[in-house]
Amino acid sequence: MFSVRTDLALEAAVLSDKNDSLSGVEIDEYEKDGTRVTKVKITNADGEKQIGKKIGNYITIECDSLRDAGDIYDRNTKGIFTHELEKIIKPHKPKSILVVGLGNRYITPDSLGPRVTENIDVSNPILCCISPGVLGITGIESIKIVEGVCAKVKPDVVVAIDALASRSMYRICTTIQLADTGIMPGSGVGNRQRALNRETLGVPVIVVGVPTVVDASTVVNDSIEHIMDETKDNMLSDEDKRYTIIKKLLSPYFGELIVTPSQIDSVITKVSNLIADGINDLGNKC
Amino acid sequence: MFSVRTDLALEAAVLSDKNDSLSGVEIDEYEKDGTRVTKVKITNADGEKQIGKKIGNYITIECDSLRDAGDIYDRNTKGIFTHELEKIIKPHKPKSILVVGLGNRYITPDSLGPRVTENIDVSNPILCCISPGVLGITGIESIKIVEGVCAKVKPDVVVAIDALASRSMYRICTTIQLADTGIMPGSGVGNRQRALNRETLGVPVIVVGVPTVVDASTVVNDSIEHIMDETKDNMLSDEDKRYTIIKKLLSPYFGELIVTPSQIDSVITKVSNLIADGINDLGNKC
Amino acid sequence: MFSVRTDLALEAAVLSDKNDSLSGVEIDEYEKDGTRVTKVKITNADGEKQIGKKIGNYITIECDSLRDAGDIYDRNTKGIFTHELEKIIKPHKPKSILVVGLGNRYITPDSLGPRVTENIDVSNPILCCISPGVLGITGIESIKIVEGVCAKVKPDVVVAIDALASRSMYRICTTIQLADTGIMPGSGVGNRQRALNRETLGVPVIVVGVPTVVDASTVVNDSIEHIMDETKDNMLSDEDKRYTIIKKLLSPYFGELIVTPSQIDSVITKVSNLIADGINDLGNKC
Amino acid sequence: MFSVRTDLALEAAVLSDKNDSLSGVEIDEYEKDGTRVTKVKITNADGEKQIGKKIGNYITIECDSLRDAGDIYDRNTKGIFTHELEKIIKPHKPKSILVVGLGNRYITPDSLGPRVTENIDVSNPILCCISPGVLGITGIESIKIVEGVCAKVKPDVVVAIDALASRSMYRICTTIQLADTGIMPGSGVGNRQRALNRETLGVPVIVVGVPTVVDASTVVNDSIEHIMDETKDNMLSDEDKRYTIIKKLLSPYFGELIVTPSQIDSVITKVSNLIADGINDLGNKC
Repeated sequence: MFSVRTDLALEAAVLSDKNDSLSGVEIDEYEKDGTRVTKVKITNADGEKQIGKKIGNYITIECDSLRDAGDIYDRNTKGIFTHELEKIIKPHKPKSILVVGLGNRYITPDSLGPRVTENIDVSNPILCCISPGVLGITGIESIKIVEGVCAKVKPDVVVAIDALASRSMYRICTTIQLADTGIMPGSGVGNRQRALNRETLGVPVIVVGVPTVVDASTVVNDSIEHIMDETKDNMLSDEDKRYTIIKKLLSPYFGELIVTPSQIDSVITKVSNLIADGINDLGNKC
Repeated sequence: MFSVRTDLALEAAVLSDKNDSLSGVEIDEYEKDGTRVTKVKITNADGEKQIGKKIGNYITIECDSLRDAGDIYDRNTKGIFTHELEKIIKPHKPKSILVVGLGNRYITPDSLGPRVTENIDVSNPILCCISPGVLGITGIESIKIVEGVCAKVKPDVVVAIDALASRSMYRICTTIQLADTGIMPGSGVGNRQRALNRETLGVPVIVVGVPTVVDASTVVNDSIEHIMDETKDNMLSDEDKRYTIIKKLLSPYFGELIVTPSQIDSVITKVSNLIADGINDLGNKC
Repeated sequence: MFSVRTDLALEAAVLSDKNDSLSGVEIDEYEKDGTRVTKVKITNADGEKQIGKKIGNYITIECDSLRDAGDIYDRNTKGIFTHELEKIIKPHKPKSILVVGLGNRYITPDSLGPRVTENIDVSNPILCCISPGVLGITGIESIKIVEGVCAKVKPDVVVAIDALASRSMYRICTTIQLADTGIMPGSGVGNRQRALNRETLGVPVIVVGVPTVVDASTVVNDSIEHIMDETKDNMLSDEDKRYTIIKKLLSPYFGELIVTPSQIDSVITKVSNLIADGINDLGNKC
Repeated sequence: MFSVRTDLALEAAVLSDKNDSLSGVEIDEYEKDGTRVTKVKITNADGEKQIGKKIGNYITIECDSLRDAGDIYDRNTKGIFTHELEKIIKPHKPKSILVVGLGNRYITPDSLGPRVTENIDVSNPILCCISPGVLGITGIESIKIVEGVCAKVKPDVVVAIDALASRSMYRICTTIQLADTGIMPGSGVGNRQRALNRETLGVPVIVVGVPTVVDASTVVNDSIEHIMDETKDNMLSDEDKRYTIIKKLLSPYFGELIVTPSQIDSVITKVSNLIADGINDLGNKC
């Protein structure tokens, strides 16, 4: 079977569940103040193989309130997030926590990590943070920078923040996943080759991930499956009907959906320089 | 027939051409130094209706060299761009040109306009520029800001820069369209309701547009058509084969393709604040 | 007498008071929750001439709490600020308020205005905002942009935010001045030639100003006066003693004091490009 | 004698020379295409003590052309800079160079380092870069971050870029100092406690520094000395005459001089949040 691109253990579990019975996977959930929390625990190599995620705990917080308009988030959701984070981190009794903001500040859907670190209160002596940037901007793998800084700062816990890829548009910026397993290679936007976890950093690595993109192939593939279900296969050639279904399918909670290359920042830089230089040249000729 | 979302007259002309014979549309092209330039002239209401674009001239510069790696663009392409811009603008004998950078600086694929204005050489007394921002950030329609500034600055020509939607991923940041018709409503990323043209601004409005996104529905629809052509309809249910075709289809020149909401900036702001506040709270509890 | 560079009516009043008896000037003050509020009312041409500020009301809020460490401001101070702003603005019964962030985003001490507008909640239909930028970046006088936008948006009130020059380092970012007189030419960092007031915009213009710099000549001159007072003139030649006094004098609440040109942004751009290009060249030679 | 705050060996040498004869210090200079290059070599502990700079080579490039208007720098000056940098670095036959941009991106006069790294061409496999940020933003000393990254990246040479304090306004952004000695504590804007040099990083550290600020106490003190020279001491009480001298003295090549705290960024953040929140509150009440 082809591999569906998702960084969420919850989605992977649901996908696997469709086809197989799951062993080595425990799923638990609760709801509070309208926020659903699902805990996926992968307990052995069997579970690891079926879900395609490492042994460990994955906590998914579905923040329906984040879908509401306005800049202010629901304080209940934050309470639940803080509570779950605390349950993972407090047992380590940390005297220092290094917050790592992964991703590229200059590509909007990949900017989650750096934006979180900007707002960390480092006047609190327990907290410190770093945004290692990305290979294309520093020439250095971000994992190397984090390893190096970790070796010097010697935090008790690392909290890494990263943008994830989800399978569903409906999860974009409305789901938060906490995991105590570190980050697998190739997550999110772009490729970050090596793992950031207890093995490589020597301390517990808690990952806070939020889906911000869906892989375009997944969108197309899921759309086709959906259409086939609805049309019983034979109606796909009716262009108008098909398009209506697609349109309805791809109406997320926020605005319209756009497809763009993950390297959009660097290609825009080039063409915007070309245009500005052309206009400046013209200015000299007028 | 459903309307395909494209801001490029060239694509619209090709689409229309498939179905109908075109009247009121003249197409001309030339190639120089490996750069193809296509001129679409819409001459009457018939052409307007068929293409879905206003009467006027549309010049498309396909910059194959922009696909090459590296930050430096090909000077030949810039020469052609400047040459074509000059041919449109010089007849107006401008003593002042207002460059308008449309779009949202904080959403990467919509940042073309603001990035161009940042590099305009305003020490040249002929050139001045403005980035009006977007409704979601200023609370003011960008067209209103441009109208107001235009009325005070009284330029001889307005050059508006904007990110466009294309039909094809292959055009992302590799095609530049020049048009002397102003900008139609609803272009590019997000919605900008009113037109920016000679009627509203009182001076010639030249639009420099570059595709930076494809509408997700278009991607899905075109993918299905492509698959149906390749598989003769009946193979769509073979998931592996279908996925292989999709993957191949959606491999653009630059990186991988991501799907994200056009309002990604504001939703990331909200969730990143929630996460940072949660971590700060935790810091106070440890 | 030479003109002391200050944008604060309170400072100007105190200075004038030293030399002359004041007519046409009424001063009133109150204190609440540790915040001192002083109201200077200039009632006629006499007062105007003596103070060097236009007829109108100037309210100075001295926010001692802003001197405290940490990112969070005192809510009492904000309450007083909102209260005083309300008293000036509410009588106009505004249905729309245009917030204008003056100054240069890229020069830290001049960035107050643009930073405030970034945080204005434009989802409130009463509020909208614009940051017109500065002449050196747009090639357009900021007043022209504001006039043009005002004519289109037709707000009931304009609230302009600007960085000011004070006479005293102790006021930097700890004093807020509200004025109903518009902004005089030449305020703050850099030069903004024309006035932004009821005459030019056609609606009431409330200015919220915060001192962020002191003019270097003022610092030197005041230091000399202070030293002369302390040393009875004849000790100025004792270098060590003099320097000790200067050091003590120039220890503000925040960090150390730096002197830099108002055009620091553009000159750093140039030299940083030179250095980066030099290193890139070297990289190609190694 | 009180210590004059300067990060330039050339200025320190000139100052010392006024009072003492120098031993352990060799000074050499040449001029090319209007650019003056001065080499100060400190050869032993004697020289170190007199100049207050570590044993090593200090090359000062005075780029008069950087004073000219416009964004484009003189290519001759860049040629000389590259040539001198090459002479220091090439003997190490580097296969990898780590460029370190020190300083605070958000404080204009301290942003030199981060701005240079933004323009480093990391597609060249020899070059990579990092901007470690500052303690106030990351909660981590920048030297620790550099040490950690260095230990992982293992470059052959480190080139550190930093903003410096000069004694003279005339040097702001027009003088480049190359040094093979690393960076002394307390340089530039703000305080960076530990040294970044061969001892701490294990590889040669070349520092490229450009003065962007003068310490306010130095400006005041130098002004007084200058006035005393001109007025023969007794005229200091003539306020008008004194102010005229000060004004003339403090007219740099670029704009006017402003005095501001080194922590201006964080204090502006606080007061701009207060003002925005106050306006938003008011918006809810109207």
